[in-house]
Amino acid sequence: MVKRTPLEETVLSRIRPTGEEREHIYGVARQLLDAISASGQVQGMVVGSIARNTWVSGEHDIDIFLLFSPTLSREMLEKQGMTLARQIAAQFTDRFFEKYAEHPYIYASIDGVGVDLVPCYAVETAIKIQSAVDRTPFHTRYITDKINGLIDDVLLLKQFAKAGGIYGSDQMTEGFSGYLCELLVLHYGGFIPLLEAAAVWRPGTVIDIEHHAEKTFKEPLIVVDPVDPRRNVAAAVSLDRMVEFIELARGYLDDPKETFFAVPPHQAITRRALAKLLNERRTHLFAITFATPPYIPEIVVPQLKRSTLAVSELLERNGFSVHHASFDMQPERSMLLFELLIAELPAIRQHIGPPLWNRVNAGKFFEKYATTQPLAPYIENGQYEVEVMREYAHAKTLLESPHLVNTSLGRHVKQAIGQGWTVDEGVTCWREEFAAFIADFFDRCSPLARIRRI
Amino acid sequence: MVKRTPLEETVLSRIRPTGEEREHIYGVARQLLDAISASGQVQGMVVGSIARNTWVSGEHDIDIFLLFSPTLSREMLEKQGMTLARQIAAQFTDRFFEKYAEHPYIYASIDGVGVDLVPCYAVETAIKIQSAVDRTPFHTRYITDKINGLIDDVLLLKQFAKAGGIYGSDQMTEGFSGYLCELLVLHYGGFIPLLEAAAVWRPGTVIDIEHHAEKTFKEPLIVVDPVDPRRNVAAAVSLDRMVEFIELARGYLDDPKETFFAVPPHQAITRRALAKLLNERRTHLFAITFATPPYIPEIVVPQLKRSTLAVSELLERNGFSVHHASFDMQPERSMLLFELLIAELPAIRQHIGPPLWNRVNAGKFFEKYATTQPLAPYIENGQYEVEVMREYAHAKTLLESPHLVNTSLGRHVKQAIGQGWTVDEGVTCWREEFAAFIADFFDRCSPLARIRRI
Repeated sequence: MVKRTPLEETVLSRIRPTGEEREHIYGVARQLLDAISASGQVQGMVVGSIARNTWVSGEHDIDIFLLFSPTLSREMLEKQGMTLARQIAAQFTDRFFEKYAEHPYIYASIDGVGVDLVPCYAVETAIKIQSAVDRTPFHTRYITDKINGLIDDVLLLKQFAKAGGIYGSDQMTEGFSGYLCELLVLHYGGFIPLLEAAAVWRPGTVIDIEHHAEKTFKEPLIVVDPVDPRRNVAAAVSLDRMVEFIELARGYLDDPKETFFAVPPHQAITRRALAKLLNERRTHLFAITFATPPYIPEIVVPQLKRSTLAVSELLERNGFSVHHASFDMQPERSMLLFELLIAELPAIRQHIGPPLWNRVNAGKFFEKYATTQPLAPYIENGQYEVEVMREYAHAKTLLESPHLVNTSLGRHVKQAIGQGWTVDEGVTCWREEFAAFIADFFDRCSPLARIRRI
Repeated sequence: MVKRTPLEETVLSRIRPTGEEREHIYGVARQLLDAISASGQVQGMVVGSIARNTWVSGEHDIDIFLLFSPTLSREMLEKQGMTLARQIAAQFTDRFFEKYAEHPYIYASIDGVGVDLVPCYAVETAIKIQSAVDRTPFHTRYITDKINGLIDDVLLLKQFAKAGGIYGSDQMTEGFSGYLCELLVLHYGGFIPLLEAAAVWRPGTVIDIEHHAEKTFKEPLIVVDPVDPRRNVAAAVSLDRMVEFIELARGYLDDPKETFFAVPPHQAITRRALAKLLNERRTHLFAITFATPPYIPEIVVPQLKRSTLAVSELLERNGFSVHHASFDMQPERSMLLFELLIAELPAIRQHIGPPLWNRVNAGKFFEKYATTQPLAPYIENGQYEVEVMREYAHAKTLLESPHLVNTSLGRHVKQAIGQGWTVDEGVTCWREEFAAFIADFFDRCSPLARIRRI
């Protein structure tokens, strides 16, 4: 048996599901599996952390996969699968509806438990999968076979990652999925051995439990899927989330404290506090707000990320230095937020022409600007230069210009912005719905710093 | 005979010294040479453009060298030479005084003509010279022997270079000396052939009339001295002056106009005009003014140039983008002038720390900043970053700070600034004595643009 510290035991006693919770969850799952069997169409399979016994108390989501024959067409799978899923859900509740990840599924709320009913193909090996969901049953079988004796370690790691803000492989978090947490604990043989290893990770770290990688991966952290040699389970983990995990690991090993397992409370900033902050910082805040494109976060969030980068580049190209930029997607509206060092620039700017050696182009440059500009071309470092009027002397007018729509925003964000956008400056950027986002925008300290501060 | 255009003939009739002017100049020179002979000590020799018959009307400076034996020590040469020069000058005028280039000499004003009386060694060949002045007699002999038939071409070139603002090899001009003009005309066989060649010059152009270069030169224009294979006569010509000459050559060949020979009138800006200009440009002007170091321009000007660069770098390092910078040396005071895009920056700035892979340094960085800064370190691109308070949020306070004195200013400028300096902002930068300099600072168009505008 692993020796736990009293702190870890205390944390475990808090996050381990109680017997009552287990019974309730397993009861709901059993009823659903029975109903699926009773349909006579397919077998059902519980997957995810419930199946693997690795859920943190309070994480009440049951994933049940409906295993259809791979001989079925994709279209028929969706049709038959969703019909069955609806039938099953309807036996237990009125509160269910269709959701969509890579493929459609039914989400139902049954006896206080969230349930996903996901149609998939029952393939022979994970290599024969037709879509990502088909792989999940293999993950569950792999982990269930090996995780015995390490379940507490997985719970500690999940809670540690949640508290550190790096849990979740969604586009917004870019962090560690539950399955990745399980594999890491499995590979290193426990929570503490994992932290000790992570403390000296570098970008390009490769973990290949089954020694079967069939390609080279480029992501900062590489954990080859034991059931699929061509897949990196850690593909979603960004460099910064990886680094933050390293930081947390070092911090915990140096000074293990309960705060490393304490999920930080949600914060929000008031309009008044934002005004005070901007006054102290003397930076220039600009918000671009527009209707959230009517698509799922998996589609919209990467576009918002790309848009934030593209608009930052537009600002920089026009001389407005970006101190920090980020974005938020709320149900109604989305926001790109920019904190600039400068909001206003002179009326003129330098425009560099060709070197004089290039006689034809130098001549053209001279002819073009000698008559049109207030100051004629001059020579500097062997090249023509000229002062021209700056197109946008204020960041706000730039962001309100058509240039905004013409940056590479991503298709749906471009459509949404094309319908109209608002540019706010300073404290008027504040909106109730973005108050939490704006708070995080300014309080973006590292996980270790936040934990030390708690 | 070369065929001249009517324009060139008109210009020549204006700039060729008249018979009267010649007689007067030669009369003064003859009297001085006689007086030198009469001293019984040394021979005198007229050098420079008077000796070579290549002076532009109105250029009234006679250079007379006193040729001492090379067996004399340097100390004795200076002592005996200056005593003799004073004696000679005193026979003609009370208005003479000591000047200093590489070595001391006497400047006298005799019958309205400026006269330099320069002691030097009469060496056998230019290679045996002991200082730069000893070389001058060789230049005069070389040019006098060969320049016949090309004198008008030299006059046109000198006037062309003066009008274009590129005549003079002093540190402020960084342009073409009279001797260089003579060699260029000699090499290409005339004014127009020279312009045709210059129109396709590139940096690194080498002209070696005697085919005897004994080293590799790095300057943009290389004209090997016919009397010294280790000297580049065009060493003083900066890249920009070379390029401006190319520009002028192309411009004149395309469209020969009298304005190419018209020396532009001196301009100055009024305080009111400066205020209007700054209001239009919306740039931020800062002037550093201090007592001019009590040394000759040859010593001070390079230091002012270096200081301007060093202060520009100081401003840029602190986030203040420099749009244009220059300097001026007036008898009483000198000025470094900076036009900035930004005068004020936020209270905070980003400070980038080590990558997390560097565990020791990353840990030190975190410890240092976690407790001292308003915002704790955060992670970006795998590195720690932190916001710190900006030391200088305003360009004026930076320029008034001790950092100014600690930039690489050059010895004498550092001493002068160490005695105290003034920082002005906006229109208060204006001073009567710098009104011409400030006018040029803003009206720095290329020679061709200025000529087209006349």
